[in-house]
Amino acid sequence: MTVATPQLPEPPKLRLFSYARSSASWRARIGLGLKRLSYEYVPVRFAGGQQHAPEYVEKNPMEQVPTLEIVRPSGVQRISQSIAILEWLEEYFPALPLLPSDPSLRARARMLAELVNSGIQPFQNLSVTEHVKTALGADEKAWTKHFVGKGMVALERAARETAGRFAVGDFPSFADVCIVPQMASARRFGVDVAPLETLLRIEKSCNALDVFAAAVPERQPDFAPPAA
Amino acid sequence: MTVATPQLPEPPKLRLFSYARSSASWRARIGLGLKRLSYEYVPVRFAGGQQHAPEYVEKNPMEQVPTLEIVRPSGVQRISQSIAILEWLEEYFPALPLLPSDPSLRARARMLAELVNSGIQPFQNLSVTEHVKTALGADEKAWTKHFVGKGMVALERAARETAGRFAVGDFPSFADVCIVPQMASARRFGVDVAPLETLLRIEKSCNALDVFAAAVPERQPDFAPPAA
Repeated sequence: MTVATPQLPEPPKLRLFSYARSSASWRARIGLGLKRLSYEYVPVRFAGGQQHAPEYVEKNPMEQVPTLEIVRPSGVQRISQSIAILEWLEEYFPALPLLPSDPSLRARARMLAELVNSGIQPFQNLSVTEHVKTALGADEKAWTKHFVGKGMVALERAARETAGRFAVGDFPSFADVCIVPQMASARRFGVDVAPLETLLRIEKSCNALDVFAAAVPERQPDFAPPAA
Repeated sequence: MTVATPQLPEPPKLRLFSYARSSASWRARIGLGLKRLSYEYVPVRFAGGQQHAPEYVEKNPMEQVPTLEIVRPSGVQRISQSIAILEWLEEYFPALPLLPSDPSLRARARMLAELVNSGIQPFQNLSVTEHVKTALGADEKAWTKHFVGKGMVALERAARETAGRFAVGDFPSFADVCIVPQMASARRFGVDVAPLETLLRIEKSCNALDVFAAAVPERQPDFAPPAA
């Protein structure tokens, strides 16, 4: 006697348009990793201005990374904006959750993620610092240090309220996915991270996990070390 | 014979810290309205710098609005960041949904909301335009016009793909909640909105609803007309 296994639908194929150094791409890589999903990595070469190429603008009208393509026999769906990608991953692949189950703590995780996503990261975005430098003739290093510095202090203060091993309790969430790349940016922009004790502790817990370690810019196929 | 009605837990009391002119506060007001929730309105007087007062910074380390307080006999929970507030409303009060049921369309609604929230609004934020003007000595009007103008064009292009009467199909979602205040900002910052045909159509559908009409800055208790 044979038992027929019901045919499950094929899971969709995933394709991530990413730039190694982009902190928003980094978030998507961590999210995909924490869900244990494999995906095709498609580099968008910012050094060559590829984000402005018409075929990419078609995929992402903001000319930004990341863009996630969800490829099914019926067609291709696209999601841009890293937080929208994380929310989709969470709903579509509910195993290995990236949000706590308690509604109040879910709100805290999202709040911390948004504090990074809309409160800090926009000011360090390459298109913004280029504008500060070239159109305004101002010191783009002082600009990022001001906004990123101020934001990190607020983030430290907000994270303290719920932090355990991770930003909200003892499991990684959207908040950690955003905090880890943001800590690297803060260092790159000359912010003194030593007083950010909670964030440093969270970062250490995250970096002990293989998924976080695999998502760093240095381990992406399009990583190029900074010019000497 | 009497039938005992089971005692339901008291719904929490809601308190919104808001500034009439803030587009992020405006989003929270629309969200609360679409869920048909009543709330206490607490003005944060930006003109008097009240967002920097220690008792407010305690509630919101970013010194921004909105902050939602959820008041229960057991204590007060706080959520800042407008998108985190919308997500909490959606999970806690699932009736009258603010996201479509289809996962792909949910992702589109969130993507459009984030395009506004992290892609456009940060650059028109008062603390940012003040910095551009005073610390950089640059023209803050040209600054906002550049970033808001560029963002609105991308938003129009992205919205076109799913728009029906509203931004994603025929019901209001997170996307509309963000688009309506952003259209008002775009006009205020001198962006020509005439070519934004899809966004204008969406705005018109929204403004026909009482909830959207009640959430405008002009109808808030702390609204002050611009100085002549």
